[in-house]
Amino acid sequence: MSGRVTSAEVAARAGVSRSAVSRVFSGASASKATERKVRKAAADLGYRPNVLARSLITGRSRIIGLVVSYLDNQFYPDALERLSEALQAEGYHILVFTAPEAEEPDALVEQMLDYQVDGIIAASVTIGGDLAARCQAAGIPVVLFNRGQDASGLSQVTSANRTGGAEVARFLRAGGHGRIAQITGWLGASTGRDRAEGFRAAAGPLVAEADGMFDRDRAAELAAAMWRDARPDAIFVGNDHMAFGAIDALRSEGAAVGREVSVVGYDDVAAAAWGAYDLTTLRQPARRMAEATVETLLALVEDPDRGAARIEIEGPLVVRGSARVPEGWA
Amino acid sequence: MSGRVTSAEVAARAGVSRSAVSRVFSGASASKATERKVRKAAADLGYRPNVLARSLITGRSRIIGLVVSYLDNQFYPDALERLSEALQAEGYHILVFTAPEAEEPDALVEQMLDYQVDGIIAASVTIGGDLAARCQAAGIPVVLFNRGQDASGLSQVTSANRTGGAEVARFLRAGGHGRIAQITGWLGASTGRDRAEGFRAAAGPLVAEADGMFDRDRAAELAAAMWRDARPDAIFVGNDHMAFGAIDALRSEGAAVGREVSVVGYDDVAAAAWGAYDLTTLRQPARRMAEATVETLLALVEDPDRGAARIEIEGPLVVRGSARVPEGWA
Repeated sequence: MSGRVTSAEVAARAGVSRSAVSRVFSGASASKATERKVRKAAADLGYRPNVLARSLITGRSRIIGLVVSYLDNQFYPDALERLSEALQAEGYHILVFTAPEAEEPDALVEQMLDYQVDGIIAASVTIGGDLAARCQAAGIPVVLFNRGQDASGLSQVTSANRTGGAEVARFLRAGGHGRIAQITGWLGASTGRDRAEGFRAAAGPLVAEADGMFDRDRAAELAAAMWRDARPDAIFVGNDHMAFGAIDALRSEGAAVGREVSVVGYDDVAAAAWGAYDLTTLRQPARRMAEATVETLLALVEDPDRGAARIEIEGPLVVRGSARVPEGWA
Repeated sequence: MSGRVTSAEVAARAGVSRSAVSRVFSGASASKATERKVRKAAADLGYRPNVLARSLITGRSRIIGLVVSYLDNQFYPDALERLSEALQAEGYHILVFTAPEAEEPDALVEQMLDYQVDGIIAASVTIGGDLAARCQAAGIPVVLFNRGQDASGLSQVTSANRTGGAEVARFLRAGGHGRIAQITGWLGASTGRDRAEGFRAAAGPLVAEADGMFDRDRAAELAAAMWRDARPDAIFVGNDHMAFGAIDALRSEGAAVGREVSVVGYDDVAAAAWGAYDLTTLRQPARRMAEATVETLLALVEDPDRGAARIEIEGPLVVRGSARVPEGWA
């Protein structure tokens, strides 16, 4: 690590001009032979072009803004890590804008524009239509992660929430449950709504339903109240983070989770596999969702006019001990 | 949101020159009266200076690089959120560099230098001495978060790990435990080592000790083996993330956690309060640690020559149900 390798040294070793080195690393046109020589010399010498210098050539900051809230739900730190890894592999990094509940995501996205980010990933937040239009006008692509917005014209990557909800319903019905209830994710968010609708359509009549708002304490209270009043034999909870609270509350009420009452979550965060919860849940494939998000976003960085993409990724039901397993369920 | 407010509009409203507006927002000298007028006009109009334009004046990117790994331990997403909030309040944002286990943090910090970050926070990673010297030479301050490095000359913010470990030992001895064991955090890290040493010094002879390496599965295996072989009546586990695994494993072995065997963790992450674990633990005050980190770092950004600070923040023991409570313990 004795001083930075310069592009002049790379040029000398490759036997090409400095401007040829610049062209290769800025993605401008260069002959295959030149590119090969330059990349080999750069690798030999450990050369890495300065990002800001490169950004002056390419007009790229190599920064992607991420608005994220709700990090207490384990799914999001996991997603952040996967997004960061997928972007790092492409030479980009994430500039984090955490959105406390009180704060408007729009204000944060405005701040991002100040940093001249090349693109924006909005996770678990809603972006106002005005702002979406402004980003579009400024040529800065936005991809919504784990959240859809019908009217926005924005690209989005989610799991197949409707299909997933329906799969949980089929599982519970096949298990012979006759008193099924639902604690939904926030119905004001597409993820909460789609899971709930998919579940409802396939589950038949429910003995109880309430909106858990993606809030753990609220879900715990609702589960306890449902147990006392409606005595369900199965509850689908709209994400794992709430399901852990529901299980704790059901146990406090004396219910034997997995025998008297089945609980199924959605996400398959790490804690779902922990012995204390052993939660049956519909997996959101965080890695594949992150990769699809990065791919979609970088394609839009290359060509902002390519039109919005809406990607849904299916995940499997992960069967554990918190819910009765239908005979012969594969 | 009809177009960006310009500094010229702010100047006109405040009745000052444009360069006076620039001086105020770049932190250059301006009279109190001018500053007051400019700030009021800016607030009235919703003016916010462009970060990159400002950075050309001030030489500041307003970007702080954060190297972080180990996000599966809930303490780190929580810390990231607190660091991000504390920095956002000062007009800075975090550029994330996730360090997969295989990757060298040094390589990531090198990439950060390319982004011309104003400072670096290294959480849960070790920074090589060469690199620390290079950052220092480049005038880029580094603060280690939740990790100390004796020889590095770097600033660091940790909890009072030694004192905390000793406090756990006093609690267990006061509770009448006579067969005390320890599953340490990784002894190659200052946090793991200091907690273990503080505990050992105050606990007296231990019936078993092993290095859990901050790894949940490893801690689970060690706890089960200790239960079978040494039959401890108390185990101090070097962080909550491992303690959850230890509790699951002890229960699998048929041990009644909280009655037959007490388990105490370190961190007080959110899940420690969840019913299934109800973990007694030494709290690391994440918010205060984050604020101290940001304060230390930004002071160094102002004055890179001010010398390294080593800050330890004490946290309380949070008493829950996973360990026997001594009579009269306040």
